[in-house]
Amino acid sequence: MKEFFKVLDIEQVLALVPDFPPVGTERVDLEAARGRILAEDVFAGENLPAFSRSTVDGYALKAAATFGASESSPAFFQVTGAVGMGEAARVAVSTGEAVRIPTGGMLPSGADSVVMIEHAEAVDDTAIEVFRSVAPGQNLIAAGEDFEQGACIAAAGRRLRPQDTGVLAAFGRTRVQVFRRPVVGIISTGDELVPIDAAPAPAQVRDVNSFTLAGLTAETGAAPESFGIVRDDYPSLRDACARALERCDMVLVSGGSSVGTRDYTVEAVSAFADVQILVHGIAISPGKPTILARVGTKAVWGLPGHVVSAMIVFSRIVRPFLRRVAGRNDPCAADVALPARLSRNVASAQGRTDFIRVRLKRQDAELWAEPVLGKSALLNTMVHADGIIEIGKNVEGLDEGARVDVILF
Amino acid sequence: MKEFFKVLDIEQVLALVPDFPPVGTERVDLEAARGRILAEDVFAGENLPAFSRSTVDGYALKAAATFGASESSPAFFQVTGAVGMGEAARVAVSTGEAVRIPTGGMLPSGADSVVMIEHAEAVDDTAIEVFRSVAPGQNLIAAGEDFEQGACIAAAGRRLRPQDTGVLAAFGRTRVQVFRRPVVGIISTGDELVPIDAAPAPAQVRDVNSFTLAGLTAETGAAPESFGIVRDDYPSLRDACARALERCDMVLVSGGSSVGTRDYTVEAVSAFADVQILVHGIAISPGKPTILARVGTKAVWGLPGHVVSAMIVFSRIVRPFLRRVAGRNDPCAADVALPARLSRNVASAQGRTDFIRVRLKRQDAELWAEPVLGKSALLNTMVHADGIIEIGKNVEGLDEGARVDVILF
Repeated sequence: MKEFFKVLDIEQVLALVPDFPPVGTERVDLEAARGRILAEDVFAGENLPAFSRSTVDGYALKAAATFGASESSPAFFQVTGAVGMGEAARVAVSTGEAVRIPTGGMLPSGADSVVMIEHAEAVDDTAIEVFRSVAPGQNLIAAGEDFEQGACIAAAGRRLRPQDTGVLAAFGRTRVQVFRRPVVGIISTGDELVPIDAAPAPAQVRDVNSFTLAGLTAETGAAPESFGIVRDDYPSLRDACARALERCDMVLVSGGSSVGTRDYTVEAVSAFADVQILVHGIAISPGKPTILARVGTKAVWGLPGHVVSAMIVFSRIVRPFLRRVAGRNDPCAADVALPARLSRNVASAQGRTDFIRVRLKRQDAELWAEPVLGKSALLNTMVHADGIIEIGKNVEGLDEGARVDVILF
Repeated sequence: MKEFFKVLDIEQVLALVPDFPPVGTERVDLEAARGRILAEDVFAGENLPAFSRSTVDGYALKAAATFGASESSPAFFQVTGAVGMGEAARVAVSTGEAVRIPTGGMLPSGADSVVMIEHAEAVDDTAIEVFRSVAPGQNLIAAGEDFEQGACIAAAGRRLRPQDTGVLAAFGRTRVQVFRRPVVGIISTGDELVPIDAAPAPAQVRDVNSFTLAGLTAETGAAPESFGIVRDDYPSLRDACARALERCDMVLVSGGSSVGTRDYTVEAVSAFADVQILVHGIAISPGKPTILARVGTKAVWGLPGHVVSAMIVFSRIVRPFLRRVAGRNDPCAADVALPARLSRNVASAQGRTDFIRVRLKRQDAELWAEPVLGKSALLNTMVHADGIIEIGKNVEGLDEGARVDVILF
């Protein structure tokens, strides 16, 4: 039943990301699409803008007639009309003619440029003098200059930022196909755990991991679903996993911090058909006793019980898997890392990747990362830290002043 | 009625942030508190942990009796019992005695440290040999080591991250006082605008700003409320502002890109009692024609109509005000900026702050910021950009290779 103990490097674990397929898709109103992952390539059905628009308040005209114009030798134009905002330009412009146009107004046919109102002066009601030359195309946006008909305006796999929903709005896409939000089942195990609204008896503690893991799940754009606190035994864990697997796209088991619990998690998961234990231990600290199984196409994680370890494993290991399952494939999906300098020496064991919690301080126009020391069961270290740095498995430690990348929480 | 034209520097505008008070507060369930802004200082009502806990599977004992123990000269202990997970330790430990304890178990009285199971060997059912010495306090978390009773565990003004809700959960705080989500009214003006589900006639365009500004508002943690498209005239604008001011904590007017609309916005806002026009133009590009008025205690913004300008003004100017109104005062509330090097020369006008859209590329282990050129009415420049850089008003331009901070979208 139990497979061979597989302690993998972090790179080997992350190489498994493509083994898990994205969730299905659904159609939503554009108003509800912000932050969701687009599940279709969207192409421009028309030019944007659909017509040439002025970018200034001024006069639409043929540029050639302004060439050589200056304060001392202005060019003279007959004003033959005005374009109203949002109104189709009906007048055509011939050489020597000009039409008044507001910012955003539609360029009349015949005109190829716009002279700013500041660079012209009215001679009378029907004539102006222009003091500066303009080039063809100046002070306007040509039809299709923003997006040409047929161009890809938004690609599948991208998280829709405000500007992306803006582009979809510009093309009248009121509904779009997005990936479903993955549902992540969260199970806390441990005979010592009580719900947060209970008063713990001596030796009992409140269930913190359910909150931190639900928060991290939601911040990744997925929907957490709690399956409560489960006793540290095989049948309870197996039943909770079965219930979670039925309803969820991914399952996180955490909280049992004893060696026994970890065995129960592997045992419980092994009870399902079509299961494969992919990872049984990762060469990282904190977070070594992490388990990853695939049940059918779904990932079931056994996370370490210590709250700091569970959070760090989620951030660095689980999150890339969850992004994949969520359908995300944009290049910006990696975490944001701020370059900083280390404020003191940090030791690290060879052969494993170490994650060090750090607090950021700005000093002498440089950003310094100050290690927050403390056991991996101490929540205060996560509260006081701004992020973590990663020390590779072939590095023995880092010196004060070393350049590091701080992955922000 | 119209006040003197006030073009301010960006620093002068941001100095007005404290003039706007935070919104009121409300009590919410901890489950709903993630991402919200805490409105109370929360103190530890008890020690965390409430009792000393083992951090390993092993034996609780008095450390002194292990001093000098080694493989060749082990220390001998009588096993007088076992602590169950979540059970109060009833046995007391005397010198020469040891009690079995799991990770997370409650330390029995008399014990001051835990020997890992790997460093001990059973002689028979009631005795062990210990091969390594431990120090007092080793392999345990002392009562109050995470948070001492009376310590501040979370401060007002902080955005609640997963670890912050975790700490509140650990102390059994099932409900917390948070700031209300500010409601931001969004008004689009412009005779050329149609709703996104309408087919624009020639010279008409769909209303994009409502989407981009609602998205930016939501990403800042506030609640956008649309007041639709309003015609470019004084009475329509005044009525829409009145409706929005009644329901909202802040109002954004955008979309009218003509000079006339900007005048109407100032005129419409000036119609209210207790109004002050604080800003009428900012020395920035894009975004110069920005208006800020205070009506009572509420900010009413007139944003430029060009979609890029409106987004950049929101990101750099409106957002710090909105964070203030939302009650946020934590040091991390600033935007994340990534250091990068500029991929080409960029010119900039003196006397104003320029915002340049850039795309990030990693090359030769360095991050490069590549300017995305294009008019401020072109949405594609925002879609292709990853962030913006700011060029100060006393800088004439930046050379290729210059070090810049990229403020991410």
